[in-house]
Formats: sequence, structure tokens, C-alpha cells
Amino acid sequence: MNDTKKPTAPAPNARFVRRVPDGDTTERFVCGDCGHIYYTNPKIVVGSVVTCGDRILMCRRAIEPRKGFWTLPAGYLEEHETPEDGARREAREEALCDIVLDGLLAVYSIPRLSQVQLMYRARLDTEQYGAGTESLETKLFSWDDIPWTEIAFPSVHWALNHWRAIKDERVFAPFANPPGQNGNFPNAA
Amino acid sequence: MNDTKKPTAPAPNARFVRRVPDGDTTERFVCGDCGHIYYTNPKIVVGSVVTCGDRILMCRRAIEPRKGFWTLPAGYLEEHETPEDGARREAREEALCDIVLDGLLAVYSIPRLSQVQLMYRARLDTEQYGAGTESLETKLFSWDDIPWTEIAFPSVHWALNHWRAIKDERVFAPFANPPGQNGNFPNAA
Repeated sequence: MNDTKKPTAPAPNARFVRRVPDGDTTERFVCGDCGHIYYTNPKIVVGSVVTCGDRILMCRRAIEPRKGFWTLPAGYLEEHETPEDGARREAREEALCDIVLDGLLAVYSIPRLSQVQLMYRARLDTEQYGAGTESLETKLFSWDDIPWTEIAFPSVHWALNHWRAIKDERVFAPFANPPGQNGNFPNAA
Repeated sequence: MNDTKKPTAPAPNARFVRRVPDGDTTERFVCGDCGHIYYTNPKIVVGSVVTCGDRILMCRRAIEPRKGFWTLPAGYLEEHETPEDGARREAREEALCDIVLDGLLAVYSIPRLSQVQLMYRARLDTEQYGAGTESLETKLFSWDDIPWTEIAFPSVHWALNHWRAIKDERVFAPFANPPGQNGNFPNAA
């Protein structure tokens, strides 16, 4: 893994230079010709811990990164989409199911990736699901059967454990990253 | 106000065309020469309802949009920044104060602007604050003195009212947009 904080580059374009625009305090990509400022911003991931009865829905990734490993239905929020709509869309795309959201479980951040993750608690009211094009397979796991050694990302560990901590609570405050963890692999729970 | 959903343009570059890349389902800006895909994503705003005793800290905007109107300390999350750090930074920049975060008050979304707002509950432990460069003035208001007719944005109304609804609660679930409201001005509370 590369842990340096590389700025996300704009589209390949030789005219862009990296400098602090007038009146700003942060270095940006600025067009050397016209002064256009290309703002790069953190990205939002939306996803869910989805349960059907006591079992948790997981997807085995059909794509890189971490192809073949297990994850939760989650992905990038699209433009003009609410986070709730995005979480439902990701479950439809990756697990071919319609979920009912039931509270914001966590707001995680992975500063190295400039990623903020909004993870919801959700449920399946009927046992109807399948593998979308980004999933090799989808499956409902009881807690003890979760493939803990084949989890795709640290934040999947976090979300599963945080879900378990409040699974019987009606009202709860969303979790943040576990103390000292930044989402990089060396810190994986 | 312009309510059409215009995609955010990449840097001016005549080579970009708007199409659905192979394997995708959404139209993107794609470089007609090299196939580079320019993903545009929703932006994250981080901010706080900051109290000092029973009074709420507000800032009168020195910049457009809504110059001269009152808002809460808030702004765009920067790359490689956690939401909590971003909320504290915005309070430092706009109100020259060090705040203590005390829970996630709300996750709002303004789909027209592709904006997701993470609003925290926070407090000032000492009455030390001032007007940063983006503020004409900053002031602590008791609830009844809040300049309700001079509020900058609908979501400032939402955050103030949501803060009031849980101000005596220790544990609470974050709010979302009030029912039927999308953050556009015609719906302003």
C-alpha cells in the first residue's frame, strides 16, 4: 500500500499547475492558462449492514480491489443522489435486493483515501437477494459464520462490530473509526 | 435559482465528451483521446451548532452566496481531512474559536447541489471567538434573539431546530432533512 498523500490529479492536462490560489490557504490544481481552479474533494461511500432475521448479508467482490474477499453492499454516492438513496441503490446493484434503512450506523473516514463512509443499519423484509455484476456471490451469514479472515476492508470489520454493539438499540449515536484506526490495512482489526 | 441538474464540468478541455463508459450505468465525462474517466462526486460540507452556555454562535457571511446573512460555522471538507477535523477547522477559520464536538447532529443532503452536510453539536468552553476573514461578524445569540429572517440557508434553519429538539439528550440519532424539504430556497423553513 502507498501511504503518501498524493493529490488526486485532474484529467491529464499539461496546463495544470499546483499552487495556492489568491485568497485561498490550500494548494490546488490551477490552469496555467486561464486560472480555472480544479477543486478536488473527499468522496462519499454509502453502504449498509443489512440483516435478514439474525443473519447479515455479505457480498464477495467480483472486482478489484480485494477481488474474492467479502464486503458489505456499499459504493460511491452519485451526483444528485441522497445518501439514503445511494445506500439502497448499492444494495440493489450488488446484492439485487430492496433494503429498508433503519438508522445511520457509522460515519467512518479514511483520510489517506479522502473517503468518508456513511454506513446504515438496514434490513431485508423478505429473503430475496442475489449476486449483482460486481459480486461473485452474496450470502446471509450468522454472526459466527462470518468469514472473518476473508474480509475485504478494515471498515467492514468496524461496521460489523459496531452493528453488533447496537443491534438491540432503537436509538443510538453513529459510530466513528475505532480509536487509533485510520482504515489502512496495517491497522486492520 | 436554477433547478436543472447540470453536471459539474471538468477542467476546460475540448477533448472531453459526455458518455456512459463501458461497464458503467451512468453518464460521465470521458476523454475522447485516451478514455480517462473524470468522476464527479457529491461534496461534503462539515459544520456545527456551537453553544456557549445557552447561546448559539452564528456568523454573518462576508462572502457570496448570501453575503450579509447569518449562518453556522461550516464549509467544504478538504482532502485527507476527517469530518471532525474539518468541522473544527471551519469554526477556527470563520469564528476564530476552538470548539469541542459533542455528537453528530444531522446528515442533510441537497441533491440539487450534490451536497451532503455533516452537522455536529459542539460547544465553546470559554467565550473566546471572533470574526474570521469569511465573516463580517460573529455573535452568540439566545434562542429568542436568533435573526430568523436573516438566515443564510434552509439547512441553517434545520440545524438550529434539530439542535433544539435534542439539546438536553446525551444520546440521539442524527437527523436528516425535514420531510419534503430538499434544501432549495422555495422550501425554506
